[in-house]
Amino acid sequence: MIYIELSNRQKKIIKIVQENEPITSEQIAKNLNVTRATLRPDLAILTMMGVLDARPKVGYFYSGKSAVNIIAQEVKNIKVKDMMSIPIIVTEESSVYDGIVTLFLEDVGTIFVVSNGSFTGIVSRKDFLKSVMGGADMNKVPIGMIMTRTPNVVTISPEENALVAAIKIIEHEVDSLPVVEKVEEAGKEIVKVIGRISKSNITKLFVELCKE
Amino acid sequence: MIYIELSNRQKKIIKIVQENEPITSEQIAKNLNVTRATLRPDLAILTMMGVLDARPKVGYFYSGKSAVNIIAQEVKNIKVKDMMSIPIIVTEESSVYDGIVTLFLEDVGTIFVVSNGSFTGIVSRKDFLKSVMGGADMNKVPIGMIMTRTPNVVTISPEENALVAAIKIIEHEVDSLPVVEKVEEAGKEIVKVIGRISKSNITKLFVELCKE
Repeated sequence: MIYIELSNRQKKIIKIVQENEPITSEQIAKNLNVTRATLRPDLAILTMMGVLDARPKVGYFYSGKSAVNIIAQEVKNIKVKDMMSIPIIVTEESSVYDGIVTLFLEDVGTIFVVSNGSFTGIVSRKDFLKSVMGGADMNKVPIGMIMTRTPNVVTISPEENALVAAIKIIEHEVDSLPVVEKVEEAGKEIVKVIGRISKSNITKLFVELCKE
Repeated sequence: MIYIELSNRQKKIIKIVQENEPITSEQIAKNLNVTRATLRPDLAILTMMGVLDARPKVGYFYSGKSAVNIIAQEVKNIKVKDMMSIPIIVTEESSVYDGIVTLFLEDVGTIFVVSNGSFTGIVSRKDFLKSVMGGADMNKVPIGMIMTRTPNVVTISPEENALVAAIKIIEHEVDSLPVVEKVEEAGKEIVKVIGRISKSNITKLFVELCKE
């Protein structure tokens, strides 16, 4: 893909054609107060780019071809596995207290929970705050009691692209997604958490894409 | 801005020129096993686009012009004031308990704090969790005691652009930025909080930019 900035005259030509199609090069030249020869390279490039259609003996038409969305193209090539962070994982049996300590130590908003190595749910700052506010004994209550359990958790596959991840985060109003994959372990199928995609990852990607 | 997808032959031509510059159109034609006449439109458009430079009696050069970053251009036109959310505001005197209730009711991660109408700080889920864990009396401790106070808070102006906001969020590792402006009220200058920009806003913008 190549991006080119149109000159002001090229932009004016597009506007004139849009408003007056079909229009001959003589009419465009008159409208812009220049000669046909001056316009020739501009019309050539606009036609070759597919912005304008030229029909012999009729004139120029606006093709209506809108800007191909280059951003989406680029983002769809970025896979979740190439941008994910390390997941912070605790077991269901861990205490709420240990969970909170982990949350502060790792400075994450959400922790993923496993049981026998298989993903079973997530627990967030909000869940912890609710639990502590409710007067639970932080040292006795296990995380399994306060977590959000699968299948009520939105997950994503490592092979998905960055745009799908961002859409899931927005549509489900979550802060992060566990990146999971099914694997065989000791003859048993388990759901392994291999990463984490958060709004921070998306925001970082956004900054990277925008910086030259 | 207009984006055009180059044909495979155009891409091949660029590669040949990059590797063999300066190179004549005869040599390029020979390399591709086509006639010069076939190549003429491709060379014309690549030259007009500024990807190749043609020097009479020497040949074609690669201009080295990299893709102008269209994403950045577009993002820089989006202002904070056009994408910000409503700020959730409490006073310094409010209790930690009231703050937590507000946080749950409004479902935000960070609340902004004011005193006499002027912005003085922020308080997050993490601050509340720390305070409650520490055994503070939620009904007695005022938010002013546990909040992060200005000038230790990163803020942004409504006139800044979306990219600056995203960079601030990433560089300072914060979840959201208070959008503030200085105003005169009753002959006194105060800092008014007029909005909130969070990673959610950036993620939403990212999705919007990518969806056609």
